[in-house]
Amino acid sequence: MSQVAYRRLSVEQRRSQLLEAALGLFATRAPEDVSLDDVAAAVRVSRPLVYRYFPGGKQQLYEAALRSAADQLEGCFAQPQTGSLTVRLSRALDSYLAFVDEHDAGFKALLQGGSVVETSRTTAIVDEVRRSAAEEILRHLQVPDSGVWLRLMVRTWITAVEGASLIWLDEGKQPALSELRDWLVDHFVGLLVTTAAADAQCAEVIGRALAVEAADGAVGDFARRVAPVVLEATHLLAED
Amino acid sequence: MSQVAYRRLSVEQRRSQLLEAALGLFATRAPEDVSLDDVAAAVRVSRPLVYRYFPGGKQQLYEAALRSAADQLEGCFAQPQTGSLTVRLSRALDSYLAFVDEHDAGFKALLQGGSVVETSRTTAIVDEVRRSAAEEILRHLQVPDSGVWLRLMVRTWITAVEGASLIWLDEGKQPALSELRDWLVDHFVGLLVTTAAADAQCAEVIGRALAVEAADGAVGDFARRVAPVVLEATHLLAED
Repeated sequence: MSQVAYRRLSVEQRRSQLLEAALGLFATRAPEDVSLDDVAAAVRVSRPLVYRYFPGGKQQLYEAALRSAADQLEGCFAQPQTGSLTVRLSRALDSYLAFVDEHDAGFKALLQGGSVVETSRTTAIVDEVRRSAAEEILRHLQVPDSGVWLRLMVRTWITAVEGASLIWLDEGKQPALSELRDWLVDHFVGLLVTTAAADAQCAEVIGRALAVEAADGAVGDFARRVAPVVLEATHLLAED
Repeated sequence: MSQVAYRRLSVEQRRSQLLEAALGLFATRAPEDVSLDDVAAAVRVSRPLVYRYFPGGKQQLYEAALRSAADQLEGCFAQPQTGSLTVRLSRALDSYLAFVDEHDAGFKALLQGGSVVETSRTTAIVDEVRRSAAEEILRHLQVPDSGVWLRLMVRTWITAVEGASLIWLDEGKQPALSELRDWLVDHFVGLLVTTAAADAQCAEVIGRALAVEAADGAVGDFARRVAPVVLEATHLLAED
């Protein structure tokens, strides 16, 4: 670690190093319990050096750390346009949930706000993560002109992913991360099917998406597990 | 209106009247743009009278208004234990969404925090609404000892209801409120079915719930609309 501090870092490298250290500290302590001295100590530099990068002090460092967390979360959904929808969603959720797992307290602080940072600015950062994630997903769905139902569906699912992540932390990180990921993918498929029952654009999207899913993939597995549950309620299909 | 002000009100009545007026003001303006004078003017009483009820001034009034909004939202899910699950959820959502519609800006302020009130206290109030709503729903599901999946499912759906309400406001109150309500009920059923595919307790709960749903009710309607979407993807059911 001391090795790193004595290496000559570029301005960008040093800034990233300080932000990563700050995120690490915000991940284990409340923002009000993290001082600039702590950040300086974590990367073995002097307090004045931290101030040179963040002359606004703790407030600026905190916002920059949130900003950096938000950038990382936004990046999760910008997956390559290859593979089926559920493969892409699984990849995106793997990055997203790994971030939640690694930065647990920091993720909570980002979403629930802290007493250090001005709330309206935190809210704007969080909103931007949500919007950007929704746009990426609409891009994966190849819908340039999304209607109100498809937007509502995608945006609501993003909220659910965020909420489920917080609940997962609150439940002591249960169930296992891979189970949570698969459930969130199932949730997306289920919600898209649900919305397709009310909206033609969603029906078209799910039709296109399901056509390229494989029987031995996530949706096939999901369909086989759901079938017995649904088949027990065929009395509901009878026309009245 | 002036009639009301001159009537002799009990302490409780006067307090409710002031809170309702404050909620009304917070519903159309940002918290920082609402003064105690505005509240006093709205119910045609003097500023000192408002101070007598809320000696802590605007901060106290704002928190009390949030508290009152939270109580109303919590009450929505405390529906009588009669009728099928979807009938109960529809009733609960009717009250919840009516509140969102009526107090739009106030609802946003409650969930996104304001710069007036200490964030950690707002967060605690919002958390309590979510917890209480989840407990009420678990009571409707008649599960005294809920496992991690059922809790995750119910709590995630609550987050989705909240998120969808905010998105609905952001989308200029589209789609129609009754369509949003029906979609959220479908979402609950869909998510419970999805989770039942992974968890035995949820499978038991959905089995019990579906048994008392009628073919001409919400789930029957949902099932008939979903069937064609799902039947287009039977290739996924093939065992590999």
